[in-house]
Amino acid sequence: MDAAEFRRRGKEMVDYVADYLEKIEERPVYPDLEPGYLRSLIPTEAPLEPESYEDIIQDVERVIMPGVTHWHSPNFFAYFPAASSYPAMLADILCGAIGCIGFSWAASPACTELETVMLDWLGKMLHLPECFLAGTSGHGGGVIQGTASEATLVSLLAARCKAVRCVRAKDPKRSETEILSKLVAYTSEQAHSSVERAALIGAVMMKKVPTDSRYAVRGDMLKKMVEEDKAAGLIPFYFCATLGTTPSCAFDHITELGPLCNKENMWMHIDAAYAGSSFICPEFRPLLNGVEHADSFNFNPHKWLLVNFDCSAMWVKERTDIIGAFKMEPLYLKHENQESGLVTDYRHWQIPLGRRFRSLKMWFVFRMYGLHGLQAHIRKQVALAKEFESLVRADKRFEICAEVILGLVCFRLKGSNELNQDLLKRITKSREIHLVPCQLSGRFVLRLAICARTTESRHIHQAWRHITQLAFELLQEHPQ
Amino acid sequence: MDAAEFRRRGKEMVDYVADYLEKIEERPVYPDLEPGYLRSLIPTEAPLEPESYEDIIQDVERVIMPGVTHWHSPNFFAYFPAASSYPAMLADILCGAIGCIGFSWAASPACTELETVMLDWLGKMLHLPECFLAGTSGHGGGVIQGTASEATLVSLLAARCKAVRCVRAKDPKRSETEILSKLVAYTSEQAHSSVERAALIGAVMMKKVPTDSRYAVRGDMLKKMVEEDKAAGLIPFYFCATLGTTPSCAFDHITELGPLCNKENMWMHIDAAYAGSSFICPEFRPLLNGVEHADSFNFNPHKWLLVNFDCSAMWVKERTDIIGAFKMEPLYLKHENQESGLVTDYRHWQIPLGRRFRSLKMWFVFRMYGLHGLQAHIRKQVALAKEFESLVRADKRFEICAEVILGLVCFRLKGSNELNQDLLKRITKSREIHLVPCQLSGRFVLRLAICARTTESRHIHQAWRHITQLAFELLQEHPQ
Repeated sequence: MDAAEFRRRGKEMVDYVADYLEKIEERPVYPDLEPGYLRSLIPTEAPLEPESYEDIIQDVERVIMPGVTHWHSPNFFAYFPAASSYPAMLADILCGAIGCIGFSWAASPACTELETVMLDWLGKMLHLPECFLAGTSGHGGGVIQGTASEATLVSLLAARCKAVRCVRAKDPKRSETEILSKLVAYTSEQAHSSVERAALIGAVMMKKVPTDSRYAVRGDMLKKMVEEDKAAGLIPFYFCATLGTTPSCAFDHITELGPLCNKENMWMHIDAAYAGSSFICPEFRPLLNGVEHADSFNFNPHKWLLVNFDCSAMWVKERTDIIGAFKMEPLYLKHENQESGLVTDYRHWQIPLGRRFRSLKMWFVFRMYGLHGLQAHIRKQVALAKEFESLVRADKRFEICAEVILGLVCFRLKGSNELNQDLLKRITKSREIHLVPCQLSGRFVLRLAICARTTESRHIHQAWRHITQLAFELLQEHPQ
Repeated sequence: MDAAEFRRRGKEMVDYVADYLEKIEERPVYPDLEPGYLRSLIPTEAPLEPESYEDIIQDVERVIMPGVTHWHSPNFFAYFPAASSYPAMLADILCGAIGCIGFSWAASPACTELETVMLDWLGKMLHLPECFLAGTSGHGGGVIQGTASEATLVSLLAARCKAVRCVRAKDPKRSETEILSKLVAYTSEQAHSSVERAALIGAVMMKKVPTDSRYAVRGDMLKKMVEEDKAAGLIPFYFCATLGTTPSCAFDHITELGPLCNKENMWMHIDAAYAGSSFICPEFRPLLNGVEHADSFNFNPHKWLLVNFDCSAMWVKERTDIIGAFKMEPLYLKHENQESGLVTDYRHWQIPLGRRFRSLKMWFVFRMYGLHGLQAHIRKQVALAKEFESLVRADKRFEICAEVILGLVCFRLKGSNELNQDLLKRITKSREIHLVPCQLSGRFVLRLAICARTTESRHIHQAWRHITQLAFELLQEHPQ
């Protein structure tokens, strides 16, 4: 394929994409097929000679689309949103063409520098404390990670490195191995599975902190555990707070937890993967109060801020803490500017070496929407969640299971877990909408998250009519 | 921006991209600017109201392009290639539009199933032993990682988990901490910095194995170290072999190392990040002989197989080894098909949770090029390297520093390191071509890698004329 054919096929692809997104509502949101469906639809080996582009693009509808869960359908309410917008898609086309691998400043200065400035822009939108911004002389700064899981892991590894260094500074006779075996990290019992996984990867102990009746960690709960562990000779070194948990969008009390972590010399990382986008609105910004106590903070613009995956924004107060945990300097990656102080080599901030020019997406989205446009998007989706909440509350057969703060509604039929499992099975099977469950206080709960950029009030009402119809049938068959 | 405007702007972007790539040679390959250049070119904060698309796209030339290192210029010879092709770019546009986050089978079955089959296709192209393929009933299988660094880390963590389990199975009284402190991993002193970094992350000891005169690890060198370490009470558990090292494209002797690792119950991972693509050609496939002894194997189609970043292909013999090291199952990620055996949940195979629909790129590229087209690409680039090698060999002032096997030529002026450092500085400063150095046996060496898809013989000759001209000037000024 030469440039001339790319011009033609690229324009066809742009139309295909626009058609797909304009008519996505006509497709069943969740596929109706059995595991292994795809293998039989295509050859067992790659072709020896080139095939025609027509054949390939026809196979997109024949092979791929029947197996797609349509995350951008307005009837998709599962997990949390995956961001998508036209400006981000345009920027991604450009990113693919430039195709630089921005592991160091020299590998493509624009790639690194735009990222640093975009993270400052975004930090200012959130009113992050100045110490998290790079500016021209700051000690902090931001980086785009692939996912929140990686941000959590990077923060835990930085904290581990710092803790070992601190302990050995006081007591040089202790071995690294012995210190590692005593380190203990904490997170909420409601935290995302990736937090526990980070500790597993980092080979450190992690304890789950119980939550209050609103599924949030309070200061006194962590304090008690830290004191017990210290008394037992362990070394508390890290707490991962969650703002907006995955099951119910609960908020740990970082105004209580932060001062405790600071006092105990524990690294506090804040994972606000989903909720973080909302902090650009003044009315939701109080949810972030206490961030000044954190060592690192992360949220995913690729969830709720219209920047397509992957774009997970992470800030640290002391960039040397992160860089120090990873730095390796082979000759083939050295370049003459790296000691200038103005230069950031992002490979020291992350797990992978290579990285795409992802800040282009942020730049296009922030400029095409403006802060007010982004705020309008958040507010609209929160309003839709509130609308759904009021529909649920008006139906005596149902109950709301957690406070609706942002775009997630946790609800269930009053009655047994089995009843609710059965309801979800019917919803999944009918394929008109798509939800996933969670568990809260031992109860099986349905989660409805406002996901697609194009979800409107009518979709919420349709979804509710559909759910209540299935619930009606279910209750007819199995009267409580 | 609505769908109608996206249609218009998307088509403009396709033309911009085609123009950029058609005329890339006219741009200086390496930017001429000082660190911090970008911040002063754009506002310090995001706009409150939307800006016009015209303003944004004009800023691409004003702000971005002056700071881009043009990896796809035929005058770019630095690092290793970053793959780029039009079919891959088309597939990426589609990937962005579908925008699913394929962490589990249910999150988008097509995303998972196409990936499994594409890794089988690619494994067959390489003639990987059957045990690495998923097929319909295999124990092995492939996965797309973001980068080779992640593949190395994942393999090391799987090996760590397996080693701890094995030791405890024999001696349940030993604690996990104590075992961890005795584990020792090995890799070549020529291995990529990411290998050492994986051990740092995994909190295990890693030792560097010396190499022979061709910069390769031999069986007897590893054997000696393993025996000494065992005698000292350590537990050798992992060896990362490199096929095609970053400094000089050397190949560890896996036919000797593999049987040793198998005998010692050590996990052997093979990192063939760059060289792996060449194994699709029968004449280069012998370089992979011995892979049957490996537990995991990885290379980057995003380097040399025309699939745009990120696409790092990894295969394992026993997928349970990998999954076992990471598995976490919160309710919101469970789905009804996951226990069927046919289903792969790729989140258990990798560090991040989220993942893009990257196999689309492989599918488009393999079908638009065919195996023969891909082989032709590899052969052409190897021939260009050989052509450059013969130019260097014909000039008595220069020497070749390592055998030229694939697309990388290591060379230097006969003389001091300072002389060669000076030569590279002049090359970098002139911005006509771009190279990076390496260190081999204490000598400062220049690396010329054939990178861009569009590099032709004339670019090689131009590059050599340019280098010899600068060398001539240098030697005039500083006669040896």
